[in-house]
Amino acid sequence: MNIVISGLGIIGGSFAKALKKYTDNYIIGINRSRKPLQDALECGAIDEIGTVESLKSADILILGTFPEAAVNFVKNNAELIPENCIVIDSSGIKSEICPELVELSHQYGFSFVGCHPMAGKETNGFVSSEADLFNNASCILVPCGANKSAVSRIDTLVRKIGFGNVVYSTPEEHDRMIAFTSQLPHVIACSYVMSPVCPKHNGFSAGSYKDVSRVARINEKLWAELFMENREPLTEEINILIKHLEEIKNAINTDNRQELEHILAKSRMVKEALGE
Amino acid sequence: MNIVISGLGIIGGSFAKALKKYTDNYIIGINRSRKPLQDALECGAIDEIGTVESLKSADILILGTFPEAAVNFVKNNAELIPENCIVIDSSGIKSEICPELVELSHQYGFSFVGCHPMAGKETNGFVSSEADLFNNASCILVPCGANKSAVSRIDTLVRKIGFGNVVYSTPEEHDRMIAFTSQLPHVIACSYVMSPVCPKHNGFSAGSYKDVSRVARINEKLWAELFMENREPLTEEINILIKHLEEIKNAINTDNRQELEHILAKSRMVKEALGE
Repeated sequence: MNIVISGLGIIGGSFAKALKKYTDNYIIGINRSRKPLQDALECGAIDEIGTVESLKSADILILGTFPEAAVNFVKNNAELIPENCIVIDSSGIKSEICPELVELSHQYGFSFVGCHPMAGKETNGFVSSEADLFNNASCILVPCGANKSAVSRIDTLVRKIGFGNVVYSTPEEHDRMIAFTSQLPHVIACSYVMSPVCPKHNGFSAGSYKDVSRVARINEKLWAELFMENREPLTEEINILIKHLEEIKNAINTDNRQELEHILAKSRMVKEALGE
Repeated sequence: MNIVISGLGIIGGSFAKALKKYTDNYIIGINRSRKPLQDALECGAIDEIGTVESLKSADILILGTFPEAAVNFVKNNAELIPENCIVIDSSGIKSEICPELVELSHQYGFSFVGCHPMAGKETNGFVSSEADLFNNASCILVPCGANKSAVSRIDTLVRKIGFGNVVYSTPEEHDRMIAFTSQLPHVIACSYVMSPVCPKHNGFSAGSYKDVSRVARINEKLWAELFMENREPLTEEINILIKHLEEIKNAINTDNRQELEHILAKSRMVKEALGE
């Protein structure tokens, strides 16, 4: 198969490397800037540097760019995408982009399957990509009504390149869950490191600091876009978090040790019930 | 030297194992329940199961229990502690316990040096202890006016058993820093997992979820005590965090992408300035 990847950042680059490592497909890279393409070609992550004309022979198109850019890329080049081509994105939000991509797929005849690889790092770009980034990670597929054979081919492909399991979801459920599992930890990390005490943490910190602050090394353009495009679920999660922070604070302030132990025990039991 | 360890939990147990692994001292364990003592004796973490009478021959006494229990142990057995003995605690708070221990040390003639090993796990008890738990960790010493030779002997000892660096602090600075580096991440983790969405996270989560939720598997009795005994610095940190969470939320709610990018960039720069 010819697989075209548009956007060779950490995710697109890792798709390229994993596809070359685990499959025999022919990989064509497209990217706004030249450097990642040359790097990818040199290290064998892609077989060819492509242009939008390469879309004409694409069996699969992987959108590795930010969500808005992914939609615009498809919109601007929809007539070049063959009817037998399956388009997948890799965005962290779905409700905001899936309807438009589904409409374009109906209009032009190709298939669209929403895809969100649950893997990443606190660093970005092709230099951070890895053939084994997806190893044992979860891949969320959001089929949005695509035909079963297209969905099944993507399911098979993502398992082949390392994903440990495939979860099926709707755009709404995806966005609700991701607000909690991924976006909220980024909001927390960024808020956490803004304490005036943070720059002096060295020597006074250990694993807890490291873990909660890790993703504060954020790509602000990407995450601002993701946060904005998932406003309702995310602000709801922030409100829920603040409510629980206030509960703990109030138990401490009112010297209510029994209540504080009760709250903390509930949290412990959530983790225990999950076997974590 | 005879080193008596009171309380063979994860920290006291790790002190015992590290002392046996890296030094030639004779280690005596004291514990309320029998099981950890027998386990420690069997695996060679201690040389002897002791009683409070063992304190009479102690060169160093390590308090491995919860803060209140540590103070009470010294109070109840102060007349058994020799004048040449150095007492160190291992508590996560200092202002609440150091003055009392310093007073007892003046009254009975022994030395007291506050000590906080910046190492731990989300599991507890002697079964979780490790000879190398302290490897490369930071050890905070709070000398509280103890004589220089006692402080220097503890400094030498903790480096010998694996600590990567020793930081000196006052009770007030210690508690202010720990509120941020250690207590706040525990408050965050416990608040985070209380989202109604948390039990369904599987398949939708990756490293961010794992990192921020890790310490929610909390020992509620220990941490409720630590939080209560550090009320002011901790509630101040919770307030600062909530303020920054609200700022991000407001930028999202008012669709102010420029402001949101600006806030996230500031967080990124805090981490970058720290080289993290």
